[in-house]
Amino acid sequence: MAYPSNIIRQIITLNRDEVQLVDAYFKPQLITKGERLLDYGQVCRFVGLVETGCCRYYMLQDDAELTYAFSNEGDFVSNYESVLTQSPSTKVIEALEDCKIWLLPLERLQKIYLEIRQGERFGRIAIEQQFVKLLEQITSLYTESPTQRYLTFLNNYPELIQRIPQYIIASFVGVQPQSLSRIRKKLADRDRS
Amino acid sequence: MAYPSNIIRQIITLNRDEVQLVDAYFKPQLITKGERLLDYGQVCRFVGLVETGCCRYYMLQDDAELTYAFSNEGDFVSNYESVLTQSPSTKVIEALEDCKIWLLPLERLQKIYLEIRQGERFGRIAIEQQFVKLLEQITSLYTESPTQRYLTFLNNYPELIQRIPQYIIASFVGVQPQSLSRIRKKLADRDRS
Repeated sequence: MAYPSNIIRQIITLNRDEVQLVDAYFKPQLITKGERLLDYGQVCRFVGLVETGCCRYYMLQDDAELTYAFSNEGDFVSNYESVLTQSPSTKVIEALEDCKIWLLPLERLQKIYLEIRQGERFGRIAIEQQFVKLLEQITSLYTESPTQRYLTFLNNYPELIQRIPQYIIASFVGVQPQSLSRIRKKLADRDRS
Repeated sequence: MAYPSNIIRQIITLNRDEVQLVDAYFKPQLITKGERLLDYGQVCRFVGLVETGCCRYYMLQDDAELTYAFSNEGDFVSNYESVLTQSPSTKVIEALEDCKIWLLPLERLQKIYLEIRQGERFGRIAIEQQFVKLLEQITSLYTESPTQRYLTFLNNYPELIQRIPQYIIASFVGVQPQSLSRIRKKLADRDRS
């Protein structure tokens, strides 16, 4: 059994034929650190599954890259906005590390909905999980201070803190890198006292 | 045929039996202006469908009510975060007008997934639509100025501008009411010149 069916079986049950079908539909791809899985203006025609590595999602405001999400091991990676509306992406998905990503072309995602008994159920639950994550993030943007947002990041992505450059974490938290240093120092002082 | 099946048939096909089932599962409820459909700390156990009227969603920061979404005619109304995780709501859903809302209890939503042929497909597509809306909103929060956010509001909810108090629109745009007045005046001046 390959990686994709293992992940999908955490959401729905698959019989032996369906396992084979799913694993045949996803194709593994190695993405080099710094490479863009999806660029501005491209229409996103895939859903991916990260086996190793980490990607970030960002949008541009003036010249600043605003990082608003990450996908790492076990996560789906896609710009659903572009997938679902088939409109050019206003976001970039970039590999922050060398990644192994299983890519499912859109027409095969449609086949999974049709050919797998619980395919639609898989689609529903997978997008529900993304939805809840996004809702938590919008809540954080509205209500949390930068320090709280940093703590939420630590809580949600404990495995990423050592792997991601500080300026990208700062961008996610919504502050300048110097401010993130101050926040980290303040938290460290507090922990010591 | 009642309202719920009419809306659901915009997403999936329903046979005659399924139409009856769907329309029997949703119960109409009249909600008075100012009433809370969902309060802080309540676990949300319904998905609703707005036939008439308008609701707003807000969260509290210190003492400020931060309006982050609306549901009006033809929209679903629910706190999916609370529904999906069955955790106490951190948001309030409040009727801004007298509303007629068709309520579907959670256990009947599960029945729709199981008993209607395309029930799961309905669930997937409905949540996808909410997801794209939310993603557009998060993009707007990150990248748009208050003036742009007001224009986006006008574009997305043209029918609500006359129906919603200005201070609530200001809260959605993320500014004080006085600032919203200035934005409106500036836009009106620009249109005149």
